[in-house]
Amino acid sequence: MRIDIITVLPELLRSPFEASILKRAIEKGLVEVHFHNLRDYTDHSYNQVDDYQFGGGAGMVLMIEPIDRCISALKSGREYDEVIYMTPDGKTLNQKMANGLSLLKNVIVLCGHYKGVDQRVRDTMITKEISIGDYVLSGGELGAAVLCDAIIRLIPGVLNNETSALTDTFQDNLLAPPVYTRPSDYKGMKVPEVLLSGNFPKIERWREEEALKRTENLRPDLLE
Amino acid sequence: MRIDIITVLPELLRSPFEASILKRAIEKGLVEVHFHNLRDYTDHSYNQVDDYQFGGGAGMVLMIEPIDRCISALKSGREYDEVIYMTPDGKTLNQKMANGLSLLKNVIVLCGHYKGVDQRVRDTMITKEISIGDYVLSGGELGAAVLCDAIIRLIPGVLNNETSALTDTFQDNLLAPPVYTRPSDYKGMKVPEVLLSGNFPKIERWREEEALKRTENLRPDLLE
Repeated sequence: MRIDIITVLPELLRSPFEASILKRAIEKGLVEVHFHNLRDYTDHSYNQVDDYQFGGGAGMVLMIEPIDRCISALKSGREYDEVIYMTPDGKTLNQKMANGLSLLKNVIVLCGHYKGVDQRVRDTMITKEISIGDYVLSGGELGAAVLCDAIIRLIPGVLNNETSALTDTFQDNLLAPPVYTRPSDYKGMKVPEVLLSGNFPKIERWREEEALKRTENLRPDLLE
Repeated sequence: MRIDIITVLPELLRSPFEASILKRAIEKGLVEVHFHNLRDYTDHSYNQVDDYQFGGGAGMVLMIEPIDRCISALKSGREYDEVIYMTPDGKTLNQKMANGLSLLKNVIVLCGHYKGVDQRVRDTMITKEISIGDYVLSGGELGAAVLCDAIIRLIPGVLNNETSALTDTFQDNLLAPPVYTRPSDYKGMKVPEVLLSGNFPKIERWREEEALKRTENLRPDLLE
């Protein structure tokens, strides 16, 4: 899989891709992630890529021209399955979407910033608009990092133990059951006895019950 | 506001706080963000902070002891309004929650990793569990960065123009209207004429209509 991220702040994105699972996935060659600085695609003075909005109002808008140039340059190199725009009014990301996106080959992710991008970009160049949740961030960069993390960890070979992702919360519409590790007694707080019993069918049953109970309590909407 | 982030991967968190709005907010002294490496709070060999889960199964679990020590050390220095745990089965973050959290003084944010933290941590030390969305990430670090960004930008003085945050998507349960900037004609694609009219009451009306139309189309649930 190849992911091209277009941003005005590539430096903001660096560390999440240089640590832990994303780093390992890139080093193993399971995914390529390229950052493209929008300022490299403008002819304006001072590398300007944004301007005031027509009609007045607070907040700057990213201009269509540098975005058009950058996307065109990328498209001249290969075919893309999706050109994604990160925006709070996009379709809300969920695990099912992440599963689907993890199967794609080439993806462009455009990060908005300030008040977002010129609407003509959205109307003519974007194939999918994604939000990571109902809140506003300073820019699309953290959203892009979240999207990449959610997708990349699902690519076979990225996690050491593939069953680890399959038992995650949301994969079966249930929240994960409680987990415990050593010590079994910490300042008088004890681990549930069943988990120390060695009776695996019983442990499995307990986990299913706890997952269901937790989902009913915290997220009944997932069971509908 | 002071935010203390407890993590096994402080290096993953670095760049989002060293760029753009978060950087400026920290430099202006409007917010303090401290990273605490959980590995500094363990006596185990090789700075071990995680272990296999009781009852078997894939994925490691963060141990209670180093977390207890770290939180206790922080609490001995000041009072905290909330001890937040980032987890996909927490309460889903939205703009209203972000508004509320931006008013707090001292907050601890604990990042899970692998399969999460020992349940006894959640039962006894955490006051609020927050999810940034219905998808699973490699760890709580990106969630913590998203949470901090959503909150910090709402602190008065962080954004250059305070009206900029108030007109964001979600602040009035409406998606933001389309925005346009120069040029007014790009390869034949034109900006809506009303925005060039200079008639501000008319522009305001157009924006309200467009915001409502977009919300009805994309997110009718926000209008319920």
